[in-house]
This record gives sequence, C-alpha cells and structure tokens, in this order.
Amino acid sequence: MSINLEQLQPRLLLGPGPSPVSPRILAALARPTLGHLDPQFLEVMDEVADGLRIAFGTRNAMTFPVSGTGSAAMEAAMANVLEPGDTAIVGINGVFGGRLTEMARRMGAEVVPIEAEWGRIVDPEQLIDALRAHPHARVVATVLAETSTGVEQPLADIGKAVADTDALFVVDAVTALGGTPVNVDANHIDVCYSGTQKCLGVPPGLGPITFSAKAMDRITSRDRSCQSWYLDVALLAGYLGSERKYHHTAPINMVYALHEGLRALIEEGLEARFQRHARVGRRLQGELEQRGFRMFAQEGHRLPQLTSALLPEGREEGPLRRRLLDDHAIEVGGGLGAAKGKLWRIGLMGHGAADANVDRLLSAVDDVMA
Amino acid sequence: MSINLEQLQPRLLLGPGPSPVSPRILAALARPTLGHLDPQFLEVMDEVADGLRIAFGTRNAMTFPVSGTGSAAMEAAMANVLEPGDTAIVGINGVFGGRLTEMARRMGAEVVPIEAEWGRIVDPEQLIDALRAHPHARVVATVLAETSTGVEQPLADIGKAVADTDALFVVDAVTALGGTPVNVDANHIDVCYSGTQKCLGVPPGLGPITFSAKAMDRITSRDRSCQSWYLDVALLAGYLGSERKYHHTAPINMVYALHEGLRALIEEGLEARFQRHARVGRRLQGELEQRGFRMFAQEGHRLPQLTSALLPEGREEGPLRRRLLDDHAIEVGGGLGAAKGKLWRIGLMGHGAADANVDRLLSAVDDVMA
Repeated sequence: MSINLEQLQPRLLLGPGPSPVSPRILAALARPTLGHLDPQFLEVMDEVADGLRIAFGTRNAMTFPVSGTGSAAMEAAMANVLEPGDTAIVGINGVFGGRLTEMARRMGAEVVPIEAEWGRIVDPEQLIDALRAHPHARVVATVLAETSTGVEQPLADIGKAVADTDALFVVDAVTALGGTPVNVDANHIDVCYSGTQKCLGVPPGLGPITFSAKAMDRITSRDRSCQSWYLDVALLAGYLGSERKYHHTAPINMVYALHEGLRALIEEGLEARFQRHARVGRRLQGELEQRGFRMFAQEGHRLPQLTSALLPEGREEGPLRRRLLDDHAIEVGGGLGAAKGKLWRIGLMGHGAADANVDRLLSAVDDVMA
Repeated sequence: MSINLEQLQPRLLLGPGPSPVSPRILAALARPTLGHLDPQFLEVMDEVADGLRIAFGTRNAMTFPVSGTGSAAMEAAMANVLEPGDTAIVGINGVFGGRLTEMARRMGAEVVPIEAEWGRIVDPEQLIDALRAHPHARVVATVLAETSTGVEQPLADIGKAVADTDALFVVDAVTALGGTPVNVDANHIDVCYSGTQKCLGVPPGLGPITFSAKAMDRITSRDRSCQSWYLDVALLAGYLGSERKYHHTAPINMVYALHEGLRALIEEGLEARFQRHARVGRRLQGELEQRGFRMFAQEGHRLPQLTSALLPEGREEGPLRRRLLDDHAIEVGGGLGAAKGKLWRIGLMGHGAADANVDRLLSAVDDVMA
C-alpha cells in the first residue's frame, strides 16, 4: 500500500456525482466518532431526520438515511413495499428506471414497463393508463431526475392518480434532493429516496429515504418479511423510534457529514438553493449550446443540476473528457448505456453549483476543443 | 437543527464497537472527495483490496469493502451463496448466529440450527455431524468472534471438514478482523466478512468481505440472480475488476479511512497487533475478576478484544454503565438478548487496545462501584 492520500490530486467534481464537498462538511466528517446508542448521537440522528423532512418536503415520521449509497436506498424502497407476485408499474427512460425494474424483478414482482426514449420524459398519461389497466398494482415507480439523461420527470398528475388507489407512488430523487423541488407530500409520493453525494454536497455513503403513512401501513401488513434484513424498515423502526433498539451500527461519521450538509441547506434556504442551481445550470447550458453542443434532454424538462450534452459533430468524447481530467483536474461524466460515447454529463450540484465552476469548466472546454 | 457537532463531548469508546478512531484515520476521512471512476481512486480501491487480503489472511481475488456496515456484509455473504430451497447449517451461540439464521431464512433457505448456550462455543463436532447428516447443505456458517458474548469459536476442524464437501464455509469475523487471527485460507473459509468499526479502528460504514474461488464458482453458477441487486457480487465484479464498469457510487471518503486503517495495520504488523490485543485484553479480564466481576465467556475461548463481564452480585448494570458515560465519558456496552441487564461488554479494539485505556476504565469502575 504505497499511496499517500495527501498526495492525491484534488479534482473539481463536475460529473454526475459525487459533487464537490465543502470544507465545513469534510470537517464534520472528521469529528470524533461516537457510539450509535450514545444519547448525543441519537440527538444528531433525530436532527438529521428533521433536516431530511425539510429537504424532502414531507411530514413523514419514517424519514432517515439508509446505511448505504443511493442504490441501497432504491433497494430499500422496492424491497420494503414489494412482495413476490406483486405488480409494479415502472417508468423507464434511462439507466435508473431500468435499475428499478431489475430490483422489482429480484423481489419477485411482475413489472409493467412504461418506456420512453432516452432523453424524453415518461408520458404521465401512459403511467396513469397502466394503473387503470392494472388496478391491483402495488407500486407505480418513476425517476424524478434521471441522472443518465438529465431529464426531469413531471410528478404531480401521476401522484394524484396513484393517491386515489391502493398503489404506492415510489420516486427516485437521487439527483434532485437539495437541488430541484421534490415536494414529497404535495406530490403524493409514498416512498422517496436519494443519495448524499449529489445536490446535498455530502460524500457518498448514505441514502436518505422517506415513507408515507400509507407506505408504512403496507409494510406492517406484509404477508412475508422483507427479503432484506439489513434494509427492513419494520426492524429499523426499532432503532429510529423511541425504543432505540440496536439493529446495526449506523455509519456515525457519515451521519455527521449529512447533518452538516442539511444545516448548510437550511441556512441557505431551499428556495434560494433551487434558484442557485437553476441559474447556474441554465447559464452552462446556454454557453455549451453556443459552443456547438446540443442538449440531449427534451426541452422544457431539462434538469439544471445535471446537463447531458451531445458533443459537437466529429468530436470524440472519451479523449476530450480525459484531457479535462488530466490537464485541468476537472471531472465530467460520460454517457451510460444507450448514451455511451455520445455525450457528457455535467453536474453543477450542491456546493459545486457556482459561477466560478462554470467559468473554470468553460475555459477548460475551450482549451481541449481548440 | 441546533446541534453544533464541535460541541459534542468526545467519549472513550470501550464498548462492542465503534472503537476509538485515531487522528490519522479521521484525517484520511476528510481528504477531498474524488469520483468513484477516477483513476486515482481506483488505485486506492485496489490497495484497499491488497490490505484486506493481508488482514483476512487470504489470496482471494474477490476481496473488497461492501458499501454498508458489517451487517450489510453479512447479508452480502448469505445473499450471494444461498438460493431458495438451499440448506444452511448455522451455529448459534449469540445474537449474530441468530442474525445469520434470520438472513438465511429470508433468502428462502432451510436452516439447520446448531445451538449452544450463550457464552459457550458451538461444538465443532456437532456442526460437522450436521454436515454429514445433510450432505447437500450449501453452507455451514458460524461466528468467529461472537460480539454478544465475547466467545472465540475454533474454526480449523470445521473448515477442514467443509473443504472436503461441496458446501461453503461462511464465517462472521466482524469483531475479529485486525484483532485476533482469522486466517481465511488456512482455515478453508469460503466467505468471510467483517466491519470497519471494531479492531480495524475505522468508523462504521464499510463491510470488508472476501470470497474464495469455490464461492465464486457457486455464485457464477446460480440458477437465479442474487435477491439483492446492491450486494450482488456478480455485478460488483464488473466495477472491481479491470472493466471498471459503474455499479453504484462507492463511499469514497470511508474508503480513504479504511485505506489508512489498513496502512496502520500493516505498519504495526499483524502479529504485533494480535499480541497487543491479547495482552491488553487479558490484563483487563484479570483486573475485573479481582474486582468481583465474573467472565461470561467459556474459559479458554475468551476473546481478548471483547470482554463480557457479569457484574458483582447485587450490582445493577444499567445505572452504573450510565455513570461511566456521564461522569467519566467512557462508553461500555450492555448485554444483548439473553444477556440483557446482566453484563457489560467491554471492547479494547484497534486503536483502543491500550494500557492507558485499561487504566482509565479501571479507575472509573472503581469510582462508580465505590
């Protein structure tokens, strides 16, 4: 083991995540470790739940950080509400809708896939029609902010339609939370999850999640236990509630970092934060278009915090992206799946959503494209 | 959110984990976050695998930190090797054998429980006999260091017996790794997992795990996919191997901390580390016996790093333990399950296994018992 961590070259993280972590959050991460049953730590955990409720826009009691990354939170969402034989209607317009589908199948569910072209939204009417055609469906799931394409999915109509049924509305807000509105309660979302390493500006390692009372009713009336012991919300409730019963050891220092990230969010204010992400992201998108890039995401449904940009004709993305990293210490992401080799994914998320970063990136882009 | 993390009172962590984290590891945790596909980070990840191989005593290629705590690693172990209908023989002499059983059942496996009284080892002959009686069993699982009782389980004979069959030997080394010998290859262990927050002295949040070639053969010839997408080793291999394919975002900063923890382990040397844990732990056990405590774990099978001590007659553990925390800022653990209310669990693990900590604890014990 020869690497000295102090000699790693820092990068400006403008990819699809992790996003830049501010010094105050790194400092929080390094506070002395406490025990997971220490009364002091339990208070920190309670405040984290309070902060997450603000970020999610919910009053849900069962709101907490899953002890894993955003994908663990996605698995927690699906594993807790689905049982073998259940039907799940899933909107798929990128990698993460596909991942939801794969997880639902591993839970033994039948999936009704509602597909849309990558870069376009899933038609809310198609999801609502599918629910009418499958009135006993357990879940309608969709991705609010598709990290693989930069598309923002409209939720309100789907949420209203699902709320009138026994189905649960599951929403992936991994790239949205803390950057663009999620509004769990107003959108009638029953299960919503995220990751810490996007617009919250915290290192990867926790998956914030929230369950509505309707979702909790479903969970407590399951026929069979959740397939996952680790992610079983019925067990986790024993630790998170007043009983404080040991389930597993919480990732203490990561919880500190999330606490600090949520404090920063509350200090800035959710609206101000959304406006900052919107303004900086729109500016980047305009500047890139002026340089011959084309936006991959459907107009009117583009996320400001995650821009997917097709390179100008004749430009190969891989070598240019590598030059951004090697010559300018800037990380941007390549395409995933169907978009591989075609586009860049540029994140301006959390602490990273700043004009200075847009300036630095554009100057580097001009250099490598020259 | 009113808590200022800087004002949390530090504790001396002498419970069953988390253990004290040294300043160098806290500093590593706070290094600037890199992307999970950054070539620099991939090198760190490769070195972490090298360090884990040394700690585990193995040459297994598939050795890595699960992106969750030790319980997530336990679930990864069971979920990857078991399919519905498989038989799992599980030794149970405390909480964590019980947890293995519960997880195996959630995977759809039939469990053959081999129980022993809490505080005693599981009779290796009984496990071996069970394997003879169930020759098609898929798994024989046991806990090397039972954190709920302080018992160290002998493995060598079980490992030899399992190696002669098609079954896989699964061992929980959560409280052992980095403190007492694990010897994965010498003990013919096929799947072994741990947590970072015990004798490695790293904050909680990662679950080191290793799979033998025999285990990997089993995994690649499964009839059905692993129930868990997040923990599926067949998918994780795409990221950990030369392909470097995105699976999920690794908990970057926690991996830094583990890297530093493994560097510290290698600098000290595994043997020196074992001797330090043994010497300091035995000293504590002797001193406690002189004060009227009785050791809960069977003589000859007591872990030095985790002491379970029954309080002197007539002493109530809860209020005294609370005084250790409130008056002396020392955390020790209470009993779990069958041992609740009867004993203390005292950890001298990782950075915490030091004479100065024994001195401080004994002085505090003398005070609260006075």
